[in-house]
Amino acid sequence: MTLDDILTLIGGRIHELDLVRAPRELYEPVDYCLKNGGKRMRPAMTLLACQMFGGDIEKAIPPAIGLELFHNFTLMHDDIMDNAPIRRGKPAVHTKWNANTAILSGDVMFALAGEFMTKVDDTHLRQVMEEYHKVVIEVCDGQQLDMNFEQRSEVSLPEYVEMIRLKTAVLPAACLKMGAIVAGAAPDDQNHIYRFGECIGLAFQLKDDWLDVFGDEAKFGKKSGGDILANKKTWLYIKALELASDTQRQTLLSAYANQISDPDQKIRTVKNLFLELKVDQLCVKQMEHWYEKAFNHLDQITATESEKVNLRALARMLFDREI
Amino acid sequence: MTLDDILTLIGGRIHELDLVRAPRELYEPVDYCLKNGGKRMRPAMTLLACQMFGGDIEKAIPPAIGLELFHNFTLMHDDIMDNAPIRRGKPAVHTKWNANTAILSGDVMFALAGEFMTKVDDTHLRQVMEEYHKVVIEVCDGQQLDMNFEQRSEVSLPEYVEMIRLKTAVLPAACLKMGAIVAGAAPDDQNHIYRFGECIGLAFQLKDDWLDVFGDEAKFGKKSGGDILANKKTWLYIKALELASDTQRQTLLSAYANQISDPDQKIRTVKNLFLELKVDQLCVKQMEHWYEKAFNHLDQITATESEKVNLRALARMLFDREI
Repeated sequence: MTLDDILTLIGGRIHELDLVRAPRELYEPVDYCLKNGGKRMRPAMTLLACQMFGGDIEKAIPPAIGLELFHNFTLMHDDIMDNAPIRRGKPAVHTKWNANTAILSGDVMFALAGEFMTKVDDTHLRQVMEEYHKVVIEVCDGQQLDMNFEQRSEVSLPEYVEMIRLKTAVLPAACLKMGAIVAGAAPDDQNHIYRFGECIGLAFQLKDDWLDVFGDEAKFGKKSGGDILANKKTWLYIKALELASDTQRQTLLSAYANQISDPDQKIRTVKNLFLELKVDQLCVKQMEHWYEKAFNHLDQITATESEKVNLRALARMLFDREI
Repeated sequence: MTLDDILTLIGGRIHELDLVRAPRELYEPVDYCLKNGGKRMRPAMTLLACQMFGGDIEKAIPPAIGLELFHNFTLMHDDIMDNAPIRRGKPAVHTKWNANTAILSGDVMFALAGEFMTKVDDTHLRQVMEEYHKVVIEVCDGQQLDMNFEQRSEVSLPEYVEMIRLKTAVLPAACLKMGAIVAGAAPDDQNHIYRFGECIGLAFQLKDDWLDVFGDEAKFGKKSGGDILANKKTWLYIKALELASDTQRQTLLSAYANQISDPDQKIRTVKNLFLELKVDQLCVKQMEHWYEKAFNHLDQITATESEKVNLRALARMLFDREI
């Protein structure tokens, strides 16, 4: 199956899931959250990896769904914590219902995720469970670090990378590895596909940071500079602080201390500083570095080039994305 | 080992757990919540059941800890939802820290619970996982029903019993069954010990309802009538409404509609109505009924009387409790 076939397959299976049962107040928000779009990249990764290693795709579907449920559970709880009213263009669960609903429906969604993860062959159950608990704990760690960094005045680049690794990159890595596990791939191959996913995930987040400031507003579908207005310590911001002269540093710090009242002017000031310091180019370089590392891991996997073609296409698609 | 030995053992093992690691902001509330007392009845049940069926108690300790972690996670999230500032005489996590901390630390606590549940022999892993996910989903269902009932004007007795079964009784039932599973007990015995725990759990909750109104304030350690002041639709209230004359019904409904401003008078009015309608005695009868059912299940378990003595003592202790 091609990447498109797989995205269609998993999208359909998720859409068909019959999640709403009594008490409906608990499960309707779960259904709403899970079926409210999303690209289904993570569960597709599980299927792609399974297929690449010659596994039966049907056997990868339950854990793929489990991982997508987990991902959506984190969005439901993160949106409460971040006070984010909108998710994928629609009201977030805590907005459409209320915070208590988002807490409890999130909890049961997390439980359902775990239940789906157990729907694998006995021979793979322990490893799937271990990998699953490892990744869910790491994602919680990442969310906590993200919240910690909001409270801190300065964050180093290695700290930032470790945070996005945990919050963003380990989940796609685990999704791929899970597909490899259920396909019975060799440990070395499992390791390489995990690292491939981790590097792609890191690059993905950097692209997110970059697009927010330098993306084409028309294509991106949202106004540029959201991270700057929210004083988010992104890769661009942290790198800029690292390279800034004393004057530039003062400009950047005062912008992030809300000393510039006009939002457009604040964005312009910070964006110009980023361009002066060339952190936009450095960010692209860093992305390329991670893509290169990702492809190195893919090269080392014992599969034919034609078996690897889908993962290469996926990586390329994520790299080239303009939204 | 006696019941006391087992309570000491599991209390010690939980106290020794080294849960705090980076990011500390995430794990300190987990440690605080888990080690902030509690009777450790649930994990003790897992150990007692394991011992009764001749299993190795050491092998029951990790799932017992997992179940206690899960129980404490539900308290952490329930306290946010119920806006309850105090837990076991100390500030609840969302009070001592904040709601976001209680959400995310709760999430990771739930994840840690699942991880502990996997620390069983391969032969039992699938059944333990299935039982675990079943119970955690049921507990979420129960909490949702409890919140639904707060919004409703009337709740029937069967609905109430189903709610407390899910919210309160299935967890001790699952704790006992988990001990039976890791001890390799026969399916029939697993079923009987589950039902035993469920009946004990139902009786336990009814005792809670009863003690809140008719308990000895000095012994109970808190002021009587808290449920009445909170307009909680307890077994007593629902049964009273069922039996009330039109006048009594009006009195009860208006008391619960906050038509009596003085708290002591409100409690006195409702309590007197309960006594008039003898729902206190009916409640004790219902408790006895469930205890009897519990002991019937215990009788059917294939173990000697001396092997059953601890579970009998535990049930007796819960039945006789005055706090």
